[in-house]
Amino acid sequence: MRLQKNSTLLFIGDSVTDAGRARPVAEGHFGQLGGSYVGIIQSLLDAYRPDCNLRILNTGVSGDTSQGLKGRWQEDVLAHKPNYVSLLIGINDVWHQYDSPRSPQNRISLETYKATLESLILSSLVNGVEQVILFTPFYIEPSLQDPVRVQLGQYGEAVKQLAAKHHCILADAQAAFDEACKQYHSSMYSSDRVHPNQTGHTILAKTFLEAIDVKLG
Amino acid sequence: MRLQKNSTLLFIGDSVTDAGRARPVAEGHFGQLGGSYVGIIQSLLDAYRPDCNLRILNTGVSGDTSQGLKGRWQEDVLAHKPNYVSLLIGINDVWHQYDSPRSPQNRISLETYKATLESLILSSLVNGVEQVILFTPFYIEPSLQDPVRVQLGQYGEAVKQLAAKHHCILADAQAAFDEACKQYHSSMYSSDRVHPNQTGHTILAKTFLEAIDVKLG
Amino acid sequence: MRLQKNSTLLFIGDSVTDAGRARPVAEGHFGQLGGSYVGIIQSLLDAYRPDCNLRILNTGVSGDTSQGLKGRWQEDVLAHKPNYVSLLIGINDVWHQYDSPRSPQNRISLETYKATLESLILSSLVNGVEQVILFTPFYIEPSLQDPVRVQLGQYGEAVKQLAAKHHCILADAQAAFDEACKQYHSSMYSSDRVHPNQTGHTILAKTFLEAIDVKLG
Amino acid sequence: MRLQKNSTLLFIGDSVTDAGRARPVAEGHFGQLGGSYVGIIQSLLDAYRPDCNLRILNTGVSGDTSQGLKGRWQEDVLAHKPNYVSLLIGINDVWHQYDSPRSPQNRISLETYKATLESLILSSLVNGVEQVILFTPFYIEPSLQDPVRVQLGQYGEAVKQLAAKHHCILADAQAAFDEACKQYHSSMYSSDRVHPNQTGHTILAKTFLEAIDVKLG
Amino acid sequence: MRLQKNSTLLFIGDSVTDAGRARPVAEGHFGQLGGSYVGIIQSLLDAYRPDCNLRILNTGVSGDTSQGLKGRWQEDVLAHKPNYVSLLIGINDVWHQYDSPRSPQNRISLETYKATLESLILSSLVNGVEQVILFTPFYIEPSLQDPVRVQLGQYGEAVKQLAAKHHCILADAQAAFDEACKQYHSSMYSSDRVHPNQTGHTILAKTFLEAIDVKLG
Amino acid sequence: MRLQKNSTLLFIGDSVTDAGRARPVAEGHFGQLGGSYVGIIQSLLDAYRPDCNLRILNTGVSGDTSQGLKGRWQEDVLAHKPNYVSLLIGINDVWHQYDSPRSPQNRISLETYKATLESLILSSLVNGVEQVILFTPFYIEPSLQDPVRVQLGQYGEAVKQLAAKHHCILADAQAAFDEACKQYHSSMYSSDRVHPNQTGHTILAKTFLEAIDVKLG
Amino acid sequence: MRLQKNSTLLFIGDSVTDAGRARPVAEGHFGQLGGSYVGIIQSLLDAYRPDCNLRILNTGVSGDTSQGLKGRWQEDVLAHKPNYVSLLIGINDVWHQYDSPRSPQNRISLETYKATLESLILSSLVNGVEQVILFTPFYIEPSLQDPVRVQLGQYGEAVKQLAAKHHCILADAQAAFDEACKQYHSSMYSSDRVHPNQTGHTILAKTFLEAIDVKLG
Amino acid sequence: MRLQKNSTLLFIGDSVTDAGRARPVAEGHFGQLGGSYVGIIQSLLDAYRPDCNLRILNTGVSGDTSQGLKGRWQEDVLAHKPNYVSLLIGINDVWHQYDSPRSPQNRISLETYKATLESLILSSLVNGVEQVILFTPFYIEPSLQDPVRVQLGQYGEAVKQLAAKHHCILADAQAAFDEACKQYHSSMYSSDRVHPNQTGHTILAKTFLEAIDVKLG
Repeated sequence: MRLQKNSTLLFIGDSVTDAGRARPVAEGHFGQLGGSYVGIIQSLLDAYRPDCNLRILNTGVSGDTSQGLKGRWQEDVLAHKPNYVSLLIGINDVWHQYDSPRSPQNRISLETYKATLESLILSSLVNGVEQVILFTPFYIEPSLQDPVRVQLGQYGEAVKQLAAKHHCILADAQAAFDEACKQYHSSMYSSDRVHPNQTGHTILAKTFLEAIDVKLG
Repeated sequence: MRLQKNSTLLFIGDSVTDAGRARPVAEGHFGQLGGSYVGIIQSLLDAYRPDCNLRILNTGVSGDTSQGLKGRWQEDVLAHKPNYVSLLIGINDVWHQYDSPRSPQNRISLETYKATLESLILSSLVNGVEQVILFTPFYIEPSLQDPVRVQLGQYGEAVKQLAAKHHCILADAQAAFDEACKQYHSSMYSSDRVHPNQTGHTILAKTFLEAIDVKLG
Repeated sequence: MRLQKNSTLLFIGDSVTDAGRARPVAEGHFGQLGGSYVGIIQSLLDAYRPDCNLRILNTGVSGDTSQGLKGRWQEDVLAHKPNYVSLLIGINDVWHQYDSPRSPQNRISLETYKATLESLILSSLVNGVEQVILFTPFYIEPSLQDPVRVQLGQYGEAVKQLAAKHHCILADAQAAFDEACKQYHSSMYSSDRVHPNQTGHTILAKTFLEAIDVKLG
Repeated sequence: MRLQKNSTLLFIGDSVTDAGRARPVAEGHFGQLGGSYVGIIQSLLDAYRPDCNLRILNTGVSGDTSQGLKGRWQEDVLAHKPNYVSLLIGINDVWHQYDSPRSPQNRISLETYKATLESLILSSLVNGVEQVILFTPFYIEPSLQDPVRVQLGQYGEAVKQLAAKHHCILADAQAAFDEACKQYHSSMYSSDRVHPNQTGHTILAKTFLEAIDVKLG
Repeated sequence: MRLQKNSTLLFIGDSVTDAGRARPVAEGHFGQLGGSYVGIIQSLLDAYRPDCNLRILNTGVSGDTSQGLKGRWQEDVLAHKPNYVSLLIGINDVWHQYDSPRSPQNRISLETYKATLESLILSSLVNGVEQVILFTPFYIEPSLQDPVRVQLGQYGEAVKQLAAKHHCILADAQAAFDEACKQYHSSMYSSDRVHPNQTGHTILAKTFLEAIDVKLG
Repeated sequence: MRLQKNSTLLFIGDSVTDAGRARPVAEGHFGQLGGSYVGIIQSLLDAYRPDCNLRILNTGVSGDTSQGLKGRWQEDVLAHKPNYVSLLIGINDVWHQYDSPRSPQNRISLETYKATLESLILSSLVNGVEQVILFTPFYIEPSLQDPVRVQLGQYGEAVKQLAAKHHCILADAQAAFDEACKQYHSSMYSSDRVHPNQTGHTILAKTFLEAIDVKLG
Repeated sequence: MRLQKNSTLLFIGDSVTDAGRARPVAEGHFGQLGGSYVGIIQSLLDAYRPDCNLRILNTGVSGDTSQGLKGRWQEDVLAHKPNYVSLLIGINDVWHQYDSPRSPQNRISLETYKATLESLILSSLVNGVEQVILFTPFYIEPSLQDPVRVQLGQYGEAVKQLAAKHHCILADAQAAFDEACKQYHSSMYSSDRVHPNQTGHTILAKTFLEAIDVKLG
Repeated sequence: MRLQKNSTLLFIGDSVTDAGRARPVAEGHFGQLGGSYVGIIQSLLDAYRPDCNLRILNTGVSGDTSQGLKGRWQEDVLAHKPNYVSLLIGINDVWHQYDSPRSPQNRISLETYKATLESLILSSLVNGVEQVILFTPFYIEPSLQDPVRVQLGQYGEAVKQLAAKHHCILADAQAAFDEACKQYHSSMYSSDRVHPNQTGHTILAKTFLEAIDVKLG
């Protein structure tokens, strides 16, 4: 495992991460982590790799964008003094340009997105976070003719560049779903190509665990 | 208008037609018709063309397939003695092969689909229905790389062939959504590419009204 | 169309406009606009006239009067910087004098009503609104012996005079319902002659679209 | 009082009589009689005239018509062996021709209405009911230009003729509301001119008590 | 009628008066007045004596005592500038000494009760209230061996003395229920001898109407 | 203890015994026995006298009368083959003559009550029940001027006579509440003098345990 | 009884004491005390020993720890000026180290626990509380191999030492459940070994009553 | 993998398997499989091993015992023609002897349990099931002093013997939880030692996947 055992790992993101988690900060074994990949990761670790002994926190908030994260980074990330932070953000920065094309309030440009993420990474590293894990934002859509997929791909490229520049761990969710869509239709993993079902969330968990180099069995 | 005034028009189909309609048969002005294109058609006619004076019934049932229609055709269509029958069916015959690829129960082959529809058309015509309006089934997906879109397109072709053969009125919903997707992303019309929102249902209503040659204003 | 394409159009009013809209300001395609004529206008435009590309906002509030509008004009209209404002108000200024004849709090006199509307129009125009669309308030009652209908007719006259004086667009809803009541009984359009059903709201949408000179098809 | 003391009085009718009564047959002091004039009559009698000592039953059913009554007369009236039966029916025979003009199922012609009522009266009298009290059906609308009011007036005339012919007690509800509408607008008594509010129901109770010649105080 | 026509009459009290009324102050015809004698009085007046034309307000609050009234007299009585105030209070001052004998917080002594009521009466009269109507508090229990009945009787005596001293109108509810209990068991009027059912509330309405000398019919 | 250890004890009665018990027959430790004295007896025995080891069943049904018991004795008592049966019935046989004096359906005369109870006792004894425990029905009302208390006292006398004649164990609930009412007002034990609160139910449990001669501690 | 009659006894603790009690402070006979041993104690005293005449208050709060108590001692204990205080706390100080082993926030060390309890006892005694009753915290688990049982036993030892040092009354709940578990499996008393069912709460009530030397019968 | 690809695998059991699954038979990707290990197995397979392509069905029923399975084996297992059947049953056969020690209805003896399971296995094999996977029933309790654990261990032994005799695949859940309890306290995996939380269910999934020799990654 690329993370130290006996450490604290905090997940943050939008509705994909939130998924009904407890407030104000979620942790523990009775559904508090919500229905997302975060709870799946915790239960896989505790079932297969109890030796890792990671304390897992979830502060995802439905509907959030990169700008939203910035506003709550101090309270929802740094205040919990995590050793590791996992970040999955970007679909709301892009998607609403397509389903609500006339509403300007949620459009985050690629430049702003990239700059914001970089500031969050730097803020984390200077405040004692040892490592940041970056998910690429994803749209469970194999067609490169789809404009959401295409534009989000650019945001994903920015994530990859930031990961490389700041030595973050990369969890390439878009690549994982692209691969999965070769096997089955996207509706196997999500009804709206944005919010994964249990299988989709398990693919995210697998992507994360492989990124931090955890073997199951 | 290609339908006679002062006549009865019955809509049947799956969840796209049902949309919370009243049971056992829906008609009237207080939400009984449900939230679909059927209620929009009635209110557009009554607002723009009260001279048409059509009695509109809705017997759509969520989750239905072409096979399901067959089992309830007598009770849900013929028993109401409509002058006209509008039929929108097929997405459940195809879609679940992709989102539930291992469940055999809802797979209706193209041959069965076409034969079933033909028997429903013939059964209608010999039982006093003057005209059948056939919607093409649709998937609000512009990419012809998408297998649901491709396969459903074949079912739509069967609908067109049957319309031509039996002189039915054709309401080409798939074509209408293909056109709409040139304007905006499919998420403007539906979150899952199957169930339209209010704008998507209005596109269905427009498609129907144009098919029966009703001018608004 | 008498409005410029690619502009913002805000609707304000009472329960007829509100109809369950999202808070604090409603816009978008998933039911946020509520069940009123506002959502019907948006979906008709997007289905028939996507070229218009209007951003539509709704800030109607159930139970409101002309006085109520005044108090929230800055926050609920001007703050959103619309290009166009549509205003439908007045039934609560009049009606409650008849159903609650001893309660003085909601009686807005004709003079106050007219003066208030004029101030709202002027406030809009000097703050960058390009055009105001004024609905006449309506009571879906054909009999001119009905005192609500008669008194509300005077408020409607005031609206017409203000429209003429300030070159507003007039959407004469009362005239539309008077015409509709020649076709069918008022209970076809509303159960209480105040709150339209889906057909009644479609008549309002038609009245508005004709007023701004939008052709469907 | 024109009824014998210590006897049983059964009320039957549609939603105006039903008003949330208990099932299968309503009687007693804890809301079982529902929110209609029936409970008001019982409580006025018990408060002002406990000497009358009438057992009061309610078998009204929402949405019922004269035809509906016929089908349940044995079970809902005769089986309870009342000394007196009060009957208020007719609005659903007429109204739905106006709010749902294309739905044929609830239209009861004047002839059928009158013949049905006569059969119910005769069936009662030969089965031991000592006296029938007939309400005129009502529409709380003063204008004689309103077609519902006009047509329902004809049904009321039929009630009056049957009352005279069979020596029934007449409770002229339409006349009472016509009088009340000279005092206040119809919306004081009902929001839809069909379902009375508490004041409207008290007017019905007063009409009934005067018809059976009960003085309060 | 001992009250002037076209005036405002405000009712205040505890749960017997409250009975689910609208907040902050209740008035009008659609259930806002709640299920108590207040709504019955309004509907009897409007049905039998529309000439009286009284505006009726209700500010009863469940659980209140004489001390509670004092704290909200300015806001809930005087601020509404009523011509007449009706006051029914006292059961909670006494009852809870018996059902919760060890809880000191709700015990209002006879002296405090009487002094408080006198201050409320005087405060009303010097602030423009023309007349106060005082209900005796009641326990629907005929036995003078019952200690609640006995003690509450002393509070009722205090009410009578205050009515005589300050020329208030007396509505002797206890006497009315004592009389009613000669006719039927107390459970005909209330299940717990404190909260009247519809018949019990109608007895309160009758007591009030007789006290202000209103004839019905 | 007058009952054999390691045996089955079934409680039957009306709403006082039912109190929300599980269906069809209640037993066990997770609230299935409902909120009545039955659950209190079980928990007192298990806490203070686990050596008794009684299996306790509850088949009380709200609203039941002695006649109602008769109809379900086979299914709800004998079919469970209890060693002991506890019976608490009678308030509904009497009470409703006072709160619903004109409704004949629930009036069970003293003779019928006594005969029915005797038949239930005999039916039990010949079908293997070793002992029947009879509660006197109770009204938590100390005044012998109260007619419900007086009449129910006669039913209680019948219970005592039957207990003596058939050597049943007598649990004199009325005497227990008479005694309790010397200490506190009846409203300490019940709000309507019929349905006990937790303290009232504990008095019933105490009465039962003393009747079967169980010492706590 | 070791407590003075006619005095006030306040219970405080965590979810075992809370059990749905009324807010802000619970007392009285209609379920306000919640479903715990507190209500059972009150009803047993009132049924068996009304001469004790104790006023009982409950301020338990679900999830609380010894640290939590400290923060609300002034408001939830001292402000009510009780003569006696009963304290049951500790399971949350220990348990969550086992079910949420990585969450540091609820771990209260034995030293802190003991010091906190001592400060609460002293604070009570110097503020007029005559006597403190201390429950040992309990885990309904007979096995001394279970680490929660073992560690909580140490906290219980601390309670016993404090009781001895400050002459508090000791209610040894753990000993009572250890004894009960010799009779039946722990699942007879609780499903999770922490929250008692009705029988488990009755064992707590018995433990308390014996500790204060109250005989039942 | 010890199962053939492209085959059907049916899970049956009690509440541990049920966990809110859809009725009548559960399958698919949108929560229909419920919250148990069954859904986790499906999502792990689809995420890690889509090549396996197993159709998974769930017919678990809460509260079931070995006897209950027998009654529904035809309808809930054989009728679905699975290639493989997974069986997890036994806790309700044993547990209720401890939490409801006096209720005889759910006690299934070891002999009956073993004989029933053998008949189910044989019935499966002769009806075309290729392989049965047997879970040992489990109690998440490490102490061998606990009688439920001890007795259930005997039932688990019977399962192992049957697995050996009939060449079934064994999924030793009890052994897995015994191992897990060496790592953490049982409350990490379940609050009542019977119903696993998400981590507990993941341990079951891991046990199953290892039993059928599926590697993740």
